[in-house]
Amino acid sequence: MSFCRLVVTCPDRLGIVARVSSFIADKGGSITEANQHSDLESGRFFMRYEVDARAMTVDSATFRRDFEPIADAFEMQWRWRDGEERRRRLMILVSKESHCLVDLLYRWTAGELECDIVGVISNHEEMRSLVEWHGLDWHHVPVGGENRDEAFAAIERLVEESGADTLVLARYMQIIPPALCRRYSGRIINIHHSFLPSFAGARPYHQAHERGVKLIGATCHYVTEDLDAGPIIEQDIQRVTHCHTAGDLVRLGRDIEKAVLARGVRWHLQDRVLIDGNRTVVFA
Amino acid sequence: MSFCRLVVTCPDRLGIVARVSSFIADKGGSITEANQHSDLESGRFFMRYEVDARAMTVDSATFRRDFEPIADAFEMQWRWRDGEERRRRLMILVSKESHCLVDLLYRWTAGELECDIVGVISNHEEMRSLVEWHGLDWHHVPVGGENRDEAFAAIERLVEESGADTLVLARYMQIIPPALCRRYSGRIINIHHSFLPSFAGARPYHQAHERGVKLIGATCHYVTEDLDAGPIIEQDIQRVTHCHTAGDLVRLGRDIEKAVLARGVRWHLQDRVLIDGNRTVVFA
Amino acid sequence: MSFCRLVVTCPDRLGIVARVSSFIADKGGSITEANQHSDLESGRFFMRYEVDARAMTVDSATFRRDFEPIADAFEMQWRWRDGEERRRRLMILVSKESHCLVDLLYRWTAGELECDIVGVISNHEEMRSLVEWHGLDWHHVPVGGENRDEAFAAIERLVEESGADTLVLARYMQIIPPALCRRYSGRIINIHHSFLPSFAGARPYHQAHERGVKLIGATCHYVTEDLDAGPIIEQDIQRVTHCHTAGDLVRLGRDIEKAVLARGVRWHLQDRVLIDGNRTVVFA
Amino acid sequence: MSFCRLVVTCPDRLGIVARVSSFIADKGGSITEANQHSDLESGRFFMRYEVDARAMTVDSATFRRDFEPIADAFEMQWRWRDGEERRRRLMILVSKESHCLVDLLYRWTAGELECDIVGVISNHEEMRSLVEWHGLDWHHVPVGGENRDEAFAAIERLVEESGADTLVLARYMQIIPPALCRRYSGRIINIHHSFLPSFAGARPYHQAHERGVKLIGATCHYVTEDLDAGPIIEQDIQRVTHCHTAGDLVRLGRDIEKAVLARGVRWHLQDRVLIDGNRTVVFA
Repeated sequence: MSFCRLVVTCPDRLGIVARVSSFIADKGGSITEANQHSDLESGRFFMRYEVDARAMTVDSATFRRDFEPIADAFEMQWRWRDGEERRRRLMILVSKESHCLVDLLYRWTAGELECDIVGVISNHEEMRSLVEWHGLDWHHVPVGGENRDEAFAAIERLVEESGADTLVLARYMQIIPPALCRRYSGRIINIHHSFLPSFAGARPYHQAHERGVKLIGATCHYVTEDLDAGPIIEQDIQRVTHCHTAGDLVRLGRDIEKAVLARGVRWHLQDRVLIDGNRTVVFA
Repeated sequence: MSFCRLVVTCPDRLGIVARVSSFIADKGGSITEANQHSDLESGRFFMRYEVDARAMTVDSATFRRDFEPIADAFEMQWRWRDGEERRRRLMILVSKESHCLVDLLYRWTAGELECDIVGVISNHEEMRSLVEWHGLDWHHVPVGGENRDEAFAAIERLVEESGADTLVLARYMQIIPPALCRRYSGRIINIHHSFLPSFAGARPYHQAHERGVKLIGATCHYVTEDLDAGPIIEQDIQRVTHCHTAGDLVRLGRDIEKAVLARGVRWHLQDRVLIDGNRTVVFA
Repeated sequence: MSFCRLVVTCPDRLGIVARVSSFIADKGGSITEANQHSDLESGRFFMRYEVDARAMTVDSATFRRDFEPIADAFEMQWRWRDGEERRRRLMILVSKESHCLVDLLYRWTAGELECDIVGVISNHEEMRSLVEWHGLDWHHVPVGGENRDEAFAAIERLVEESGADTLVLARYMQIIPPALCRRYSGRIINIHHSFLPSFAGARPYHQAHERGVKLIGATCHYVTEDLDAGPIIEQDIQRVTHCHTAGDLVRLGRDIEKAVLARGVRWHLQDRVLIDGNRTVVFA
Repeated sequence: MSFCRLVVTCPDRLGIVARVSSFIADKGGSITEANQHSDLESGRFFMRYEVDARAMTVDSATFRRDFEPIADAFEMQWRWRDGEERRRRLMILVSKESHCLVDLLYRWTAGELECDIVGVISNHEEMRSLVEWHGLDWHHVPVGGENRDEAFAAIERLVEESGADTLVLARYMQIIPPALCRRYSGRIINIHHSFLPSFAGARPYHQAHERGVKLIGATCHYVTEDLDAGPIIEQDIQRVTHCHTAGDLVRLGRDIEKAVLARGVRWHLQDRVLIDGNRTVVFA
């Protein structure tokens, strides 16, 4: 084993840290980064350890088996991710706006995103050439008024066959059906082009311009059945003035959208985002 | 005359700048700072000139009389503010939270706010000593359930007698009656402790915490009859994380609130804020 | 004519605005955006007008001829840019880091940069495919120890033949020879990967990490003969913590670098950057 | 006992977390906030625990005695701070600029700074009334050319008699003598009015204006014998433009200075700042 990661969520109780850190030390693992959080309201505890496992005396299978009793005792939801096992697999969905996709592909190429990109699905054809130039699979799945169910069945099949574990909606302008939301709960990441909860729904920059706000924003969140209401992962803003038209807001907003989405995806891939009801714990 | 200021709003038309700047040059005035804005949607034009009037050949009364025909021709709303005439007069209203008041008083003392503060009105007594130490008049006007009308009649009288031209609600937690909103339209400045339009109404930091946002904000706006819906002057935000409790948001928010309110008040006093329907043009 | 731009720098004097705006109004032009600045220290005046020239009664040649006497009277350096005449021409120089180039190409494709890109010059071959995929000319000019003079002679020739008016150093890691700096004075834009004047020179992120700063930055500036000391166009920063290694600073810095360079280039192309000695006036 | 804090610095080694967290759990303590950092370059480990000690079975004296062997084994520098024992004691030094002092006093009054303020020392008399209105001791110690040694001897005596453990230089414009720097090493906090390492020394805003930077900053750092070169605790910046004079930078800078100093002091008081050579680990 080389570098591993342990992520735990459980009811907050005395002795969790002692128990877990002792277990890791006993196996010869060295904790190189540690984060934990106790949510006073939900009474839940969140923990993430980066472990240098090079000197560990057991393999990951054994680690998992031996950790099981501890996990049970503390009622943990947990994950031990071994850096030598299979990488995360991302399926990206886009429509016509390319900025988020271009940015994700650049970062992936530059090694900023630790994952495989298993393909790009789009309801349009505009970005085929860009995607294929990166050597990635392109799937065109038009979503019309009548074929919606069929289209999303096709998308679900593509995702399944690709073995993707995470879906990234990189300005994908279709509403994801509830069943798909549930199936990939906590694993569909969307970028909304406003500072939620302000301006949910359509044409947020035009709403923002109309209201005369002095800052515009973007929000990266997990998709749930409630439109634009899922747990927020990351947000950022950009100052605007009376000089900016709604069109300028759209242009300036692109820079925030891609930055915010990239941070959200990166943290998700690094298991830094833990869901706590309709909020997130982000060990950034 | 020394330093003056010309502020103009009118329908956008060819030749306004030429006409106004020629008029000023003819009188011997020198424009030291110029701002203008054409709003393409409303079709209105906004202009603000700082004028070095030391070499001007006419006094302000003559300037105003001679400018009248131009103003009429272009259907201008306009104001010529002479730096040697009476300073702006501010009445501040507060409740129990002192941070905005402390900040405004410091800035006023430091010369950052070009105005006289004619007094402080409060529905509580907590800040009397602070205000009096600054040598300012303190007015305690309790606002109970039944005496609301009476209380606001008293407040209106105090404002009137003080000759205040601007009211600053520095975390004043009472709703201003519609009649007072209309009478001092465009001259009542409020600080709302959220990034409007998110979390209007009561306990915005608790709403923000509940929603799990990653940034909190504050909004400085002119008060209108629609609660928390008037023209926005300035906004700013502060990053927060899952570590912060609602109480932390309240603490962190105080810093944004006072900074945003101070900027709004400063710009208002410098005639940098022009109202354009429910939005503002801010020549900051 | 359609949309034009007048940019003026001259000694500050009474009546410039009146004279210029009257001239434009007389010709039937409508000023849609106006910026001006008086530098009290240098005594110089800076002005930029966006002009809706669709109703103008003269063509650009006539406008320029008729404006000449005014320009002479006020000792102006000036430029009348007609939107229907030739677009600005950009030559980009890169080395091995691709983030700034990828970003500029995306923005150019998205219509955010009003210019032609006439080619990309590099001392390496890494980005050939990317550049050619965008349909642009690729020039490989290796710069070794001995052939420096020769290499830069070749570069100067390429620039000349391309008709480029602006050179953008998008993380080009070679020092531009003094003669080239002088020839394209005010038209070579560089991105330096630190918050100048901190950490000029080599390996700024490592210097920053060593010093333990809590913010890192990037600086877009015009290139002069003094390394990293030319007029600053734009800067921005990013918060870092003790958790970040020098390598993390490099990664985080890429996002600032490309954003800051893009803003600088965009403003330069829109004639929003006026040079005032070793400083800039930026009408952003 | 109620709420306590354990802060540890030591060479990085396997099993520290396990050993310490087990010790705390064994005594019945509950870790409510945990931070740790391994510095790969210095090979040192940094840890900070907030402990809910209400159910602990030992008092602080016993805790310290029993922890000693662990501390020895791991060569720890450590501190167990018991919330019921004596609060931190702050001595503030100021000269003529009041903004940082006003801000600190407000925050202290508002309960944002968990400490006693044992007095204010100044080489001027301007702020006596302000300080005394807050019910604090005022010490006027003039520092002239000849009496420097004497003055600082007096200051050292005042600090000693007051039992202050931390000195805050809230725009105190005198250089602290080396002996005093050494004696209170890691306990003298200064605010420098520039984004260090840019513009160290005198008149930084004028240097910044001269250089034409687009952002100004402030730096909170521990004072060492090397002027403006001690470990940085916190920094922040503010955007400026060509419109701003050096005087404007001074005014805008005040807001950054006080915010940055307040954060630095707050974190210091909460034992969130650990020194790592000439850098800091800040568990903010």
